[in-house]
Amino acid sequence: MHLQRRGLGVELIAVTNDRFDVAMLARIIVEVEPFVDYFIIRERTKTANEYIRLIGRLSAAKVNKEKLIINDRVDVAVVTGINKVQLPGHGLTLQQVKSYFPNLRTGRSIHSPEEAWEASRSGADWLLYGHVYDTDCKKGVPARGLEELKLIAENVQSDIYAIGGIKPEHVVELNKMNIRGIAVMSSIFDSAKPARAAEEYHEACRAYQFLEGG
Amino acid sequence: MHLQRRGLGVELIAVTNDRFDVAMLARIIVEVEPFVDYFIIRERTKTANEYIRLIGRLSAAKVNKEKLIINDRVDVAVVTGINKVQLPGHGLTLQQVKSYFPNLRTGRSIHSPEEAWEASRSGADWLLYGHVYDTDCKKGVPARGLEELKLIAENVQSDIYAIGGIKPEHVVELNKMNIRGIAVMSSIFDSAKPARAAEEYHEACRAYQFLEGG
Repeated sequence: MHLQRRGLGVELIAVTNDRFDVAMLARIIVEVEPFVDYFIIRERTKTANEYIRLIGRLSAAKVNKEKLIINDRVDVAVVTGINKVQLPGHGLTLQQVKSYFPNLRTGRSIHSPEEAWEASRSGADWLLYGHVYDTDCKKGVPARGLEELKLIAENVQSDIYAIGGIKPEHVVELNKMNIRGIAVMSSIFDSAKPARAAEEYHEACRAYQFLEGG
Repeated sequence: MHLQRRGLGVELIAVTNDRFDVAMLARIIVEVEPFVDYFIIRERTKTANEYIRLIGRLSAAKVNKEKLIINDRVDVAVVTGINKVQLPGHGLTLQQVKSYFPNLRTGRSIHSPEEAWEASRSGADWLLYGHVYDTDCKKGVPARGLEELKLIAENVQSDIYAIGGIKPEHVVELNKMNIRGIAVMSSIFDSAKPARAAEEYHEACRAYQFLEGG
């Protein structure tokens, strides 16, 4: 367990979808923040400067920096004082980040038990495994289902988050998989009412959150 | 003077053009390296992983790392042990890089005296000013000519490199501008014979290089 431990339960990560400009994305993140444990800021077409302006707006709006995870741009995380990065397969390696930026906590996306063992051995603090259910984002690629998810979650040290096609009603069965949480992109950020969507996930997840001492 | 001082003269920077894959780009850089003082690796569509594979190939081919400047991806420079970065206008700021990565030397692209003063005051080690001559890369944007270049070169601390439409025959007049060198992209990397093209620039520049003690 390396993300801030909140007790037994299912956490909610919202992954941004690279479809909004900085101002609009900031507004949506601020709106959904009360319902979300972490955000992966994954904006492939945005420049470093746009990332930094986004973080500036979020800080001005008092979004908790501990909730923010920067995808790929480790340098942006460093200069904005964000201590978590998500490393895509085409990005820096875990080993590189661990040796040159030892204060950063690191997540990886994985798609098989083999990738999970390797990433976990290399010191990944958390892993996103998917896609678990069918999703329009991965058309034509069959969903991986829950068995492998369970196998991974029970056998690696890193926290496991499930991603891909997850609906609020899936949380009941996902909670049995020994995972740390779920990650959601389009169902929140493509929604006409992102805050309402996030709240539904939050409520589904909260049923399994028993905050220690809370 | 912040890049490695080679004595009075005109240095040659080759700027990559983001048109080749890793293997081909590595081959071209290795070929032209004998004629080039610095490379700005500016591959906007390449991933961090591709940058790192490129650097790996160049290291394997014994390209002098001191000649390499990474555009934009400061994190890539750090993990590959490259100590120079070129910061685009949409990238991290000079101030950010200076405070979080104090060991890196930094260059900036500028287009006016105002930008030159500001970048120089902020501690830029070198500046690329352009475009000086008409170039197909900046169609419809009038060339800035030599007067402003001279004004900047004589009034800022940072080293000035001219860029934009420079041909080998321009070096004679450019050498009178008090600049540190020239930067060339398409005339080298779009050439059918990149090594021959680089050699022509090198010969034009070398006429003004009097190596100290050499």
